[in-house]
Amino acid sequence: VSKVYTAELLGVGTELLLGNIVNTDARDLSVMLSELGINVYWHSVVGDNPQRLRQAVEIARSRADIIITTGGLGPTCDDLTKQTLAECFGLEMEFNQEAADRMREHFAVLNRPMTENNLQQAWLPVGCTVFQNLWGTAPGCAFKSGDNIVLMLPGPPRECNAMFRHCGMPYLRSLSDETIVSHNLRIFGLGESAVEFRLRELMNELKNPTLAPYAKEGECMLRVTAKAATEAEAEAMMVPVIERVRGVIGDYIYGVDAGSLEEAVFELMKEKGVTLSVAESCTGGFVAKRLTDIPGASQVFPGGVTVYSDMAKAKLLGIDAGLIAEKGAVSYEVACEMAVRVREVMGTDIGVGITGVAGPDTDGRHEVGDVFISLADESGVYCRLYTLGKTRARVRLSSANNAFDLVRRRLSGLPMEHRD
Amino acid sequence: VSKVYTAELLGVGTELLLGNIVNTDARDLSVMLSELGINVYWHSVVGDNPQRLRQAVEIARSRADIIITTGGLGPTCDDLTKQTLAECFGLEMEFNQEAADRMREHFAVLNRPMTENNLQQAWLPVGCTVFQNLWGTAPGCAFKSGDNIVLMLPGPPRECNAMFRHCGMPYLRSLSDETIVSHNLRIFGLGESAVEFRLRELMNELKNPTLAPYAKEGECMLRVTAKAATEAEAEAMMVPVIERVRGVIGDYIYGVDAGSLEEAVFELMKEKGVTLSVAESCTGGFVAKRLTDIPGASQVFPGGVTVYSDMAKAKLLGIDAGLIAEKGAVSYEVACEMAVRVREVMGTDIGVGITGVAGPDTDGRHEVGDVFISLADESGVYCRLYTLGKTRARVRLSSANNAFDLVRRRLSGLPMEHRD
Repeated sequence: VSKVYTAELLGVGTELLLGNIVNTDARDLSVMLSELGINVYWHSVVGDNPQRLRQAVEIARSRADIIITTGGLGPTCDDLTKQTLAECFGLEMEFNQEAADRMREHFAVLNRPMTENNLQQAWLPVGCTVFQNLWGTAPGCAFKSGDNIVLMLPGPPRECNAMFRHCGMPYLRSLSDETIVSHNLRIFGLGESAVEFRLRELMNELKNPTLAPYAKEGECMLRVTAKAATEAEAEAMMVPVIERVRGVIGDYIYGVDAGSLEEAVFELMKEKGVTLSVAESCTGGFVAKRLTDIPGASQVFPGGVTVYSDMAKAKLLGIDAGLIAEKGAVSYEVACEMAVRVREVMGTDIGVGITGVAGPDTDGRHEVGDVFISLADESGVYCRLYTLGKTRARVRLSSANNAFDLVRRRLSGLPMEHRD
Repeated sequence: VSKVYTAELLGVGTELLLGNIVNTDARDLSVMLSELGINVYWHSVVGDNPQRLRQAVEIARSRADIIITTGGLGPTCDDLTKQTLAECFGLEMEFNQEAADRMREHFAVLNRPMTENNLQQAWLPVGCTVFQNLWGTAPGCAFKSGDNIVLMLPGPPRECNAMFRHCGMPYLRSLSDETIVSHNLRIFGLGESAVEFRLRELMNELKNPTLAPYAKEGECMLRVTAKAATEAEAEAMMVPVIERVRGVIGDYIYGVDAGSLEEAVFELMKEKGVTLSVAESCTGGFVAKRLTDIPGASQVFPGGVTVYSDMAKAKLLGIDAGLIAEKGAVSYEVACEMAVRVREVMGTDIGVGITGVAGPDTDGRHEVGDVFISLADESGVYCRLYTLGKTRARVRLSSANNAFDLVRRRLSGLPMEHRD
């Protein structure tokens, strides 16, 4: 059996201590390390100060097996991480020609001159494993020293993330004679405790693979993790477990190792060759915004309307002002009209309508969180009243999520009603 | 002269180490502490484990004057912060009746039963200053012990933030015979280095008040901080400094101690009694979404359209298909039409149009980041080509920001061209 490693994540950067940025690197690395079965026991942050960095490294090496630093690898005189860590572990520095060449190439592609101070980034501890930076300029690295394993990664989240996934995780995997592989089942419509309740028996029964639920904003994730001698073996062990989970909560799983709910819906729409338009009231463009976050969204989404007033509902969609006056802008009838009309106007296969009370004020007829979401297609129109939380941000997020989920259920041939 | 305190922020919670949540408390407290002139030198996080928490407290008390813990004050057996800190500092615990009463009241208002384990939260270190929790259930507290000052705050960001601002900051201020007051000038259209370049002389010359720029996502902030015997004195000292800053970069300042750029625009529109509609292509609903994040947005914003295809531009706005074919969807002419037409269709005072290349693919005529933004009002239509970065997320954020800034400039009677 392999040793279970403990890890400390050490962020380096005064901008973190000033609160200019939030330490998302620590969150992202924690998630990826838990996929490897490594226990993250400490996060810490120090500024661009060599003395306090040195002290933090001494503390980390005394309590953690693995130390992963983020930040401070750049070309300015503030960037002290590599130099300071090398000193702490008694290593000389050497110039890495490949890193320097890559940097020159990087600047050439951008058609920008490379100032000489950039080459400082190519100096790395002697004998380290170099992580070339394919996503920016500063290379990262890793080395072993006594009982410690040290990794240094760049600070910018995109670079830190990609380098850890593509270089750091394989490096850490190579140190173990066991392989840990995990898959994330992305779930919408069931909370963490509901997932736990339904799968409690299975979770207790399993030792390897293991099954663990995690709450995510507005949704939930279930991680299946297997340890085996080879990756293929680990994968094979997970197949029957995922099948059993699907047998219990299959409808709620929108993807395995998938991106966001909107990305899952986007893929499904592309696969089925279906187009979508949206008429948004309380979400005010949030559904359109999330869809168009995805490159290539125009393949499935020609557009939508934000109808934030009765006038807009009448003008842009031709909804009868009398109907709105009679039933109210937040009503089953108006929601249905929104989906039907936007589908007609935009000539899409599916139309979605969302109208509700995001708060803090109510419309006098409904509570904050009451939201009608409708879906129109060739077969007619489906509409439902949801109760979606008490704060404006929560109601809007949850309304958009449920709209995406409705499209997913329709395109997957699943029942539209999903809460119980 | 008062001592300059150093502070360590100690987050407690396994959910942080699992990466389930990101440590925004550390960011928010860092910002507020810098307003007090306190140097945050360390952030650290440990899980809900009494032994590792105790060790982290020992490290923190040996290096920092002020220790602020966040999290672990709740009613479950995982919540160990108060008990563990009291042990570390040799304090007994006592029951705080007021906190218990408040909790009962809190549950009564929510019309939910209060389970007895909630009362665990009312046990606090003997002799501490109690921070009653008006935003949730768990009270926080503060005490002095030797050279250390300890504050304990709840973990949920909303509660942590509010309690620190309303209880923690006054507590820390009361320990000093000087008052530190600061104001944040919110800046759009000039980066941190451009602000620094223009104000370098003034910044170097000033000792009290001080002036420091901070980069924020897509914008910049300038903090003026004064120390004096009284708040009134500190305020008076800052007046001429802010005037001098305004003299140099006044056009770029969208607010003092203001919220977001969209909130500043919203306030300005309400004040002027002006309404706005938007026609969005590359931002795909992002401007509408950000406006409708604001409660009461319907007072100024009846709605908008996401015209993500040529067809949508024609159908929703009646833009001539021939014009689009001739000039391209991303063009000065189509951008102008978008603003003019959406203003007409929606009957608003101002219409804004945004069309550009968010990437990763281009339209064959423009580069990624080329975005036309237009503003139509009774006086006609203004339109400009912007160059706004290389990544999709960045282009979209910056397009929306610039659209808001254009409205701000028009309503404030400032020149529309702002970069130089």
